[in-house]
Amino acid sequence: MTQKADKLFTNAIVLTMDGKLNQYDPGTVAVKGDSIIAVGFESEIKKEYSADEIIDCGGRVLMPGLVNAHTHVPMTLLRGLADDLRLDVWLMGYMLPVEREFVSPEFVRLGTSLACAEQIRSGVTTFNDMYYFEDDIAQATADAGMRAVCGQSVMKYPAPDAAAFEDSIAYAREFIKKWKGHPLIVPAIAPHAPYSTTPEILRTCADIAREFDVPLHIHISETAFEVENMRNEQGMPVVPYIKKQGVLEAKVIAAHCVHIDVGEIKTLQHVNAGISHNPSSNLKLASGFAPVQKMLDNGLNVGIGTDGPASNNDLDMFEEVRLASFVAKASSNDPTVVPAATALLMATRMGAQALHIGHLTGSLEPGKRADLIIVDTAPVHNSPRFRRDPQNAYAQLVFASKSTDVTDVMVNGKWLMRNHELLTLNETELLKQARELAQKIDTFLIEREQSVLSKLIALGGSMEQESFEVQVKVRVTEPDQLVQKMKRPEVEITAYKHYHQYDDYFLFDDPSQGRLRFREDNLINAKGEVENVRSRLTLLGQQREGEFGHDVLLSRSRFLAPAIHTSRFYREYFKPKQEISVEKNRLRWHIRYKNTEFFINLDEVKAPQMGHFLEIKSRTWSRKDADRKAELASELLALLGVGDAEAVTQDLIEILTTK
Amino acid sequence: MTQKADKLFTNAIVLTMDGKLNQYDPGTVAVKGDSIIAVGFESEIKKEYSADEIIDCGGRVLMPGLVNAHTHVPMTLLRGLADDLRLDVWLMGYMLPVEREFVSPEFVRLGTSLACAEQIRSGVTTFNDMYYFEDDIAQATADAGMRAVCGQSVMKYPAPDAAAFEDSIAYAREFIKKWKGHPLIVPAIAPHAPYSTTPEILRTCADIAREFDVPLHIHISETAFEVENMRNEQGMPVVPYIKKQGVLEAKVIAAHCVHIDVGEIKTLQHVNAGISHNPSSNLKLASGFAPVQKMLDNGLNVGIGTDGPASNNDLDMFEEVRLASFVAKASSNDPTVVPAATALLMATRMGAQALHIGHLTGSLEPGKRADLIIVDTAPVHNSPRFRRDPQNAYAQLVFASKSTDVTDVMVNGKWLMRNHELLTLNETELLKQARELAQKIDTFLIEREQSVLSKLIALGGSMEQESFEVQVKVRVTEPDQLVQKMKRPEVEITAYKHYHQYDDYFLFDDPSQGRLRFREDNLINAKGEVENVRSRLTLLGQQREGEFGHDVLLSRSRFLAPAIHTSRFYREYFKPKQEISVEKNRLRWHIRYKNTEFFINLDEVKAPQMGHFLEIKSRTWSRKDADRKAELASELLALLGVGDAEAVTQDLIEILTTK
Repeated sequence: MTQKADKLFTNAIVLTMDGKLNQYDPGTVAVKGDSIIAVGFESEIKKEYSADEIIDCGGRVLMPGLVNAHTHVPMTLLRGLADDLRLDVWLMGYMLPVEREFVSPEFVRLGTSLACAEQIRSGVTTFNDMYYFEDDIAQATADAGMRAVCGQSVMKYPAPDAAAFEDSIAYAREFIKKWKGHPLIVPAIAPHAPYSTTPEILRTCADIAREFDVPLHIHISETAFEVENMRNEQGMPVVPYIKKQGVLEAKVIAAHCVHIDVGEIKTLQHVNAGISHNPSSNLKLASGFAPVQKMLDNGLNVGIGTDGPASNNDLDMFEEVRLASFVAKASSNDPTVVPAATALLMATRMGAQALHIGHLTGSLEPGKRADLIIVDTAPVHNSPRFRRDPQNAYAQLVFASKSTDVTDVMVNGKWLMRNHELLTLNETELLKQARELAQKIDTFLIEREQSVLSKLIALGGSMEQESFEVQVKVRVTEPDQLVQKMKRPEVEITAYKHYHQYDDYFLFDDPSQGRLRFREDNLINAKGEVENVRSRLTLLGQQREGEFGHDVLLSRSRFLAPAIHTSRFYREYFKPKQEISVEKNRLRWHIRYKNTEFFINLDEVKAPQMGHFLEIKSRTWSRKDADRKAELASELLALLGVGDAEAVTQDLIEILTTK
Repeated sequence: MTQKADKLFTNAIVLTMDGKLNQYDPGTVAVKGDSIIAVGFESEIKKEYSADEIIDCGGRVLMPGLVNAHTHVPMTLLRGLADDLRLDVWLMGYMLPVEREFVSPEFVRLGTSLACAEQIRSGVTTFNDMYYFEDDIAQATADAGMRAVCGQSVMKYPAPDAAAFEDSIAYAREFIKKWKGHPLIVPAIAPHAPYSTTPEILRTCADIAREFDVPLHIHISETAFEVENMRNEQGMPVVPYIKKQGVLEAKVIAAHCVHIDVGEIKTLQHVNAGISHNPSSNLKLASGFAPVQKMLDNGLNVGIGTDGPASNNDLDMFEEVRLASFVAKASSNDPTVVPAATALLMATRMGAQALHIGHLTGSLEPGKRADLIIVDTAPVHNSPRFRRDPQNAYAQLVFASKSTDVTDVMVNGKWLMRNHELLTLNETELLKQARELAQKIDTFLIEREQSVLSKLIALGGSMEQESFEVQVKVRVTEPDQLVQKMKRPEVEITAYKHYHQYDDYFLFDDPSQGRLRFREDNLINAKGEVENVRSRLTLLGQQREGEFGHDVLLSRSRFLAPAIHTSRFYREYFKPKQEISVEKNRLRWHIRYKNTEFFINLDEVKAPQMGHFLEIKSRTWSRKDADRKAELASELLALLGVGDAEAVTQDLIEILTTK
């Protein structure tokens, strides 16, 4: 008496990708409900199981669906928007501005559906995402029938779905509660990267990941620049830094890990972190060569990811698997490392383990969900077939198969594609909507293309300042008295400097372009001599985008760049309509008051003659923190005896241009 | 009154890849006979030209066909045979033995037809080949309707189509005469590589290339090992060496150029050499990263090639173009180098220039042959499309298009594929023949898999000796007299050494496995002390494969390897059935006689006691040279007073085992 299955896959070259890399040819897989119940040689399985539906695989390969271990699926909609650029120009000049303008729940649903269509076509059954409005991404993914780990992004910068990181954290909490336990979706929290978060954000995210027992998805050590900065600022590389913030107490999925050393590899292995290696993205952005062989040697679970389609520019895991093998060989100067079977394992069972869902998917084994694909390995670009060595089967798939050779895809026991036809998505309609959106993005960018900001960014090295500026400014009539008051015991002076500042303001026809300030800072020593000179460019927004209380300014559009060229260069490059020069003497204190740091500037504006001004300043990524600092700044004003002085709400350049 | 064309391509995004990278959208191309007669905006061309056949491209991309700048097309039949191996193991363990056994005119025709099918499907219209029986390759290519530069291989080793290089040279001459002037085929001569040829071969090939004004196709500086050897042996890198042999006076196509310096780049540019960069092959074999950006900066024409499908493992130029961009970015740590347009140019116009056929193909320009392809850039993996920047069109093709997006292909004005259907090849029949052949190769290799040679090669470092051994051996009864006679003025002694030799012969069950000799050479100085010890392994063929005259032995199956392990290791590794040890005293002279070099060995076999033997030896790659040396060796015997001595035709081990 045979047992009853729902479906029997027969006449297949079955590559199980299980612990022994068992192959069955001809092999059979039995599926019941959402799960695999038997795998083996056809002659044996057919004796034990019967089913109403028999799927004849026609001698093609039957294998587990591929696991895309790191991506940002909605960015299908930004594919090919900007290429061959340095990371900062690409990110700050194109991706971030477009995302701020366009990313919405509707955007991410459309982009996710497109990504599902592309991934199903290319044999991906599971992906690991990180983006905004992750609730809508999860919904679109579940609607398409795919399996995914969906990580809600948290960053210190304002995001399309959050004005401040506190909003993202609150969103993530609700998102995780809603999706936890879903048959296809594993919700996760995704603090974007160490450099784009704060220790507080990392700790909070780790706490949430542990509270709900969900993965924590994060970018780690993608570029050498990131590691260098971390060493300079924290005196340690990236992995020890995130460990210090408690991140490694969660189920971590670390994307990239290009620039990590053996010590960091061992640390990650010790906490069973999963890695996503993203070869196309690392090559295209010139990020470097990840130490894949070393990670594997040290027992890490290394998956393979496409990264976002805006930096790849597709979601083709067959390409990534091939590149994972190629790049490991080339970068280690050894053609025997990461052989075909290993590369394919990374994209299946090991990839699922890296996402902490190895118990659900990644191999054809009884008890796992029925996530499987059929691949035709007999087209002209993949013929003939050699059978001398079991490795030949993996070599065919890894070195010569194309994603378009995938003919059928099943996830969780449900068909998503039969004979190249998608069953859960309306591709034509999705493509139409994508075309319409692309036209809007084209129009938006063509308009911005000539902006000062984009030109500033095109120079490289620019960076956005903290989102919230706390600033109080008053006219001062008796500066010498104020200098005396700085010696009060409540004010702890941690640094004091004297500058002569020469500012050139560039003004443009279109005031919405903002103003560009070229500042030369001459540092003056105790003898009154110039000790040091530095220059930098600052793009000031035309007006504050909002105010919190009377002292806190939101200045989201403030960009800084080192001015490595002369003011003449910038004059010729930006072609300002008008130019205004200001010369001033600045006494600058870095102080600590009630355990909080502030800058205090006492300015004497000499040319044009405008008298003295006192500024108390601080910047932060957190709105809550900004409110607290504004209160302290008011206290400081009183303490310095200028609590009643005339408040000035304009910048110098505003005063000068509105006269 | 409009001019009459044969065909008008309309409603296309026309990427001309011409000198100005003109794009026309919507654009039109007019074809008459085998050539393009007009290219431009649809509105303009349609006013000037009419045609009976209008091809509506449906808004897809119309562009020049891709140029595969370096390949070995018949090796489609060896695709996936052996992967993830070190170059020597792959080449000497698998490729060369299989090629010796299977490569024939029929083999190369089938392999070429398969390669044409694959390449047409993926948008390649021109390729540059190097293999054996190139006449048959040219015929199969012309039958398929593709354009190709076909290079007949010449090597110092015996080849499937030549027992000695003189045969290859003669073949090449006839081949070039036959095909010169063909509308699709450009015949060429292909000295395989500097390390696999002799100065004489290189000079002769260069002479032929100049005589017939055809390209000379050669592998250059593929590995660091090759360059290191060249520096050690010739005191110069590879490009100066081939220049010295006159190679650069021909129209050179240099494949790989991974390890060349700026001086070599400038030398190659000066002679207008074309380069083929082969990223997949270089990555998969861990050969290194070619200095592509430096070559481009110095004005070299750099094309892109797939290399042979046994080391890639396919002929997909879309992949290669993408990798050319990726690898250049990653290896130079700069994401802006080799942008999409440059990569695509390398695979079209610049590639054709690299093959010295830039006047015929590579761009859509009036006067060039109609070699063009239609590519659908609107499938889900390549949507949406941005139009903000002309670069977007190249980025789509380079970073997200798949070879399977090519829908139509025309070469020389003739359709080879319409809407994915091949028109000149019977794919089903070709695949059937390939399957049958693959089964034979599988059987052959399974039988050889356990051979001593394959195990020897698996150890690495083994190399084949020269093909022809000249050897005369006689018994000597008065060794002291002979030593005196060595002082005759006709014999110029260039070196003299005294060795104690300890040989361990490993014998196997199957005599066709040959015998393995582990030799320890103890160099004895004038005081009779051991000055130096070295060990090496030699695999001796069971019997000579043939004899030329009475003294010349053909010993093709002789392999040498440094013995870096102990004799115990080799005993355990090879598991010989029987082991025989021989100890002897060897006086060894390196002499010059009539301007020809010989080794003379005077052996005293001490254990077992067998008396004295005199050997005169020389090795060469040339049969003609072998004949001449055999004559000189006989003269030497007489000169040394042993012209009448008992000749010995067996090796010591043969004498010992046949006793």
